[in-house]
Amino acid sequence: MSTEENFVALLKKMSAYSEAVSIMYWDMRTGAPKKGIPARSEAVGTLSTELFKMSVSEEMGGYLEELGNRKDTLNPILLKTVEEVKKEYDLSKKIPAEEYREFVVLTSQSESAWEEAKEKADFDMFLPYLEKIVATTKKFIGYWGEKDGNPYNTLLDQYEPGMTTDIIDEVFGQLKETIVPLVKKISESGNQPDTSFLFKKFPKENQKAFSHEILKQLGYDFDAGRLDETVHPFATGINIGDVRITTKYDENDFRSAVFGTIHECGHALYEQNIDLELEGLPVADGTSMGIHESQSLFYEQFVGHNENFWTYNFDLLKSQSPEQFEGVALEDVLRAINVSKPSLIRIEADELTYPLHIMIRYEIEKGIFNGDYEVVDLPEIWNDKYEEYLGIRPKNNGEGILQDVHWAGGSFGYFPSYALGYMYAAQLKVAMLKDLPNFDELCGNGDFGPILDWLTEHVHKYGKMKQPLEIIKDTTGEGLNAKYLADYLSEKYTKLYNL
Amino acid sequence: MSTEENFVALLKKMSAYSEAVSIMYWDMRTGAPKKGIPARSEAVGTLSTELFKMSVSEEMGGYLEELGNRKDTLNPILLKTVEEVKKEYDLSKKIPAEEYREFVVLTSQSESAWEEAKEKADFDMFLPYLEKIVATTKKFIGYWGEKDGNPYNTLLDQYEPGMTTDIIDEVFGQLKETIVPLVKKISESGNQPDTSFLFKKFPKENQKAFSHEILKQLGYDFDAGRLDETVHPFATGINIGDVRITTKYDENDFRSAVFGTIHECGHALYEQNIDLELEGLPVADGTSMGIHESQSLFYEQFVGHNENFWTYNFDLLKSQSPEQFEGVALEDVLRAINVSKPSLIRIEADELTYPLHIMIRYEIEKGIFNGDYEVVDLPEIWNDKYEEYLGIRPKNNGEGILQDVHWAGGSFGYFPSYALGYMYAAQLKVAMLKDLPNFDELCGNGDFGPILDWLTEHVHKYGKMKQPLEIIKDTTGEGLNAKYLADYLSEKYTKLYNL
Repeated sequence: MSTEENFVALLKKMSAYSEAVSIMYWDMRTGAPKKGIPARSEAVGTLSTELFKMSVSEEMGGYLEELGNRKDTLNPILLKTVEEVKKEYDLSKKIPAEEYREFVVLTSQSESAWEEAKEKADFDMFLPYLEKIVATTKKFIGYWGEKDGNPYNTLLDQYEPGMTTDIIDEVFGQLKETIVPLVKKISESGNQPDTSFLFKKFPKENQKAFSHEILKQLGYDFDAGRLDETVHPFATGINIGDVRITTKYDENDFRSAVFGTIHECGHALYEQNIDLELEGLPVADGTSMGIHESQSLFYEQFVGHNENFWTYNFDLLKSQSPEQFEGVALEDVLRAINVSKPSLIRIEADELTYPLHIMIRYEIEKGIFNGDYEVVDLPEIWNDKYEEYLGIRPKNNGEGILQDVHWAGGSFGYFPSYALGYMYAAQLKVAMLKDLPNFDELCGNGDFGPILDWLTEHVHKYGKMKQPLEIIKDTTGEGLNAKYLADYLSEKYTKLYNL
Repeated sequence: MSTEENFVALLKKMSAYSEAVSIMYWDMRTGAPKKGIPARSEAVGTLSTELFKMSVSEEMGGYLEELGNRKDTLNPILLKTVEEVKKEYDLSKKIPAEEYREFVVLTSQSESAWEEAKEKADFDMFLPYLEKIVATTKKFIGYWGEKDGNPYNTLLDQYEPGMTTDIIDEVFGQLKETIVPLVKKISESGNQPDTSFLFKKFPKENQKAFSHEILKQLGYDFDAGRLDETVHPFATGINIGDVRITTKYDENDFRSAVFGTIHECGHALYEQNIDLELEGLPVADGTSMGIHESQSLFYEQFVGHNENFWTYNFDLLKSQSPEQFEGVALEDVLRAINVSKPSLIRIEADELTYPLHIMIRYEIEKGIFNGDYEVVDLPEIWNDKYEEYLGIRPKNNGEGILQDVHWAGGSFGYFPSYALGYMYAAQLKVAMLKDLPNFDELCGNGDFGPILDWLTEHVHKYGKMKQPLEIIKDTTGEGLNAKYLADYLSEKYTKLYNL
């Protein structure tokens, strides 16, 4: 066999392991009996370790070296594959094995410590762990090397290849200028929607039926996926023909299931529509966290919160919970599901205030790695920023800096993806309108096929064959631009609140 | 690390692979989306291949040799583990790799050929495959070596360690003497039960509720398992804390789900109650096909068909399908669910005629490997035996010799386990009565705990730490004895049919 064939064979073997690990995770989260979990976790650990060993093996190193030395002889898929695998290989190999092992132990202890600290709202309990994690991450950045003169870029690039603080500073700055005053105006507006009917009982079985119907409308392929229930919704691509989603049914707030399902559907449509030619290779995956999030947010916000979407689906919604919507007009629903109110907890935030939560985390992370902030000072910095951007201040660190697990797990550079995805989505939407000027009409007719086709053609099918900013450039003709999201939010909320 | 520790580490690693493969199989059969199946099958193939490689690796060979040379230094669990692993190792290593590979290809082609042949009821289409499979199996027996002077014993031993044609000839002979005349008398009896109400509609959701309730009664631990739906019911032990069962709901015949569930429950209780000390080792499994089947049949026949079991559960049954049982007395149900009638298809046979189907297959397999029968003559031999034992003759080979897939897959020596399990179960039941003389009363009170405890104490907890006949000897004080099953069937059917 040629080196190419051996390389692909090794990758496909790794893909089998990764498929096994994915299905075991899915199973643990959707219904595995609890007494089987300890043995299951060990099994997952064993297979993950084997997978890691293969990824940094001498065999792998040999292939990467040979193929890397003659890139001009590789077809485009193999070329991209070599680059992607090499990137991961280097990330792993540049850290001394013993230091990496210590870091894994540290983050695991740190997550436990965080859990207790959060419950007790006691930052001091978590402080020594966070300090060590930050120190180690700084050391790792030293091994990996700074990107474009900024240590934080090294972390950003791991989740969003090609993304830099220069770009983010600019787009977040622009976005902030629109959102902060909007939020303030809304808070002060006397024109608040009635949301009381949202919290009436909507039976779980009916939410399930509604979710299934919406998924079918949007083009989710049930022959290549399934919908289950979990505490925390997620989408998982096990292979291109098996992309599962889960949702959460709250009988006293149907929005959780409806928008959760649509959000995960956006993630799933991305992975269901990757070109089958890429199957079994590492390039058969979303190209970045941000682009992945752009697809989920595109569906959640630009389709699921579209007025015509609800014109089309209001009867269906009512039929699944008739009492709840008695005397409620479509317009009431539209106002209620788009309510905006500053809040302290990121995962409960609405679509207008959400980006502010992200900006705060971004600014803090950048400050940490650029040496502007000391870890011990972070709670105060956090609280000040909430007051500045959202006009509210956490009463304690439990509802402040301790609310998210990311830092305890050593994930820095991940948060920005959430807001980047939102901006990508808005920008893609404007580009889509050029090809589908009848977008609203399509939503009003429940004709979502052309929307999915467009996204598949411009985003999905490529998998990792294009970088995030390449997709944006090729599709919209420019780099990331915050204007589109700013315009969208501004127009939408001005209208909704009659500002 | 010591050799012992290295050996156990390798086995636990294999156990992780095997856990992954089990969960992937379970998933494929219970609800994996169909478009993901090709990639999933490849992943299962990859992991199974790796598992096989480990099982015959030089590393494994080295451990087995060293530990086999100093068995007196091993603790009982490790000693048994070495013996079990060595047995499998030898089975695999004695066949030249290329011949084994060819055999795998042959059986795979043969299964496809069988499928078509069965559909067309055309034995000639299947004949060349079956001849090759038999010839190859004979060659393999040559490699493995004859057991106790009989080539067929070599095959029996793979499913039922220690079992020989001498033992089976005796017990099957004894059983036949009871069953054949009984079946004849019943066929000629004018006292046939009314079974018409069995086939009335029993809604699936209610069958599900009933199944769950029965499982709880019998002691199935839902924290260590779950019940799902499949076309062919099965139980699968993923680890000791995760033993899942599936059943099939036929709305026009509730017996399928009820007795299917109880049968699989018997298998599952076995694996849920293996001593946790054995977890992760190959000895943490049922000791043989026959003993496994003894547990499923114990529950299906001796509990699930017990008169008092239904006294206790009749109200529950009625409440789940009130119309169906209007005007039906408990006695009618008992007679109907115990109806016996000779039939041609093994998997549809009742509990009285079932052993005859097994005996026919056993006699034919023995005849093949002892050189008494030629493959080409088998259809005629098959049909003659059905006429002799059951008084009916297949009209074609589709409902005759082609009905089962086992031989197409190269499984010879497996069939007897079904009837052995039945005899083990009857023998265990009589032994249990000495400790639990109030067995019927327990069933009548829905108090199944003591029954499960007894089986755990005498059978389940040992896993593979005892051989099948060792369990029977230790528990009942004698070897396998067909008398108990013969007596049970004789007494039961004489009473039911007023013979």
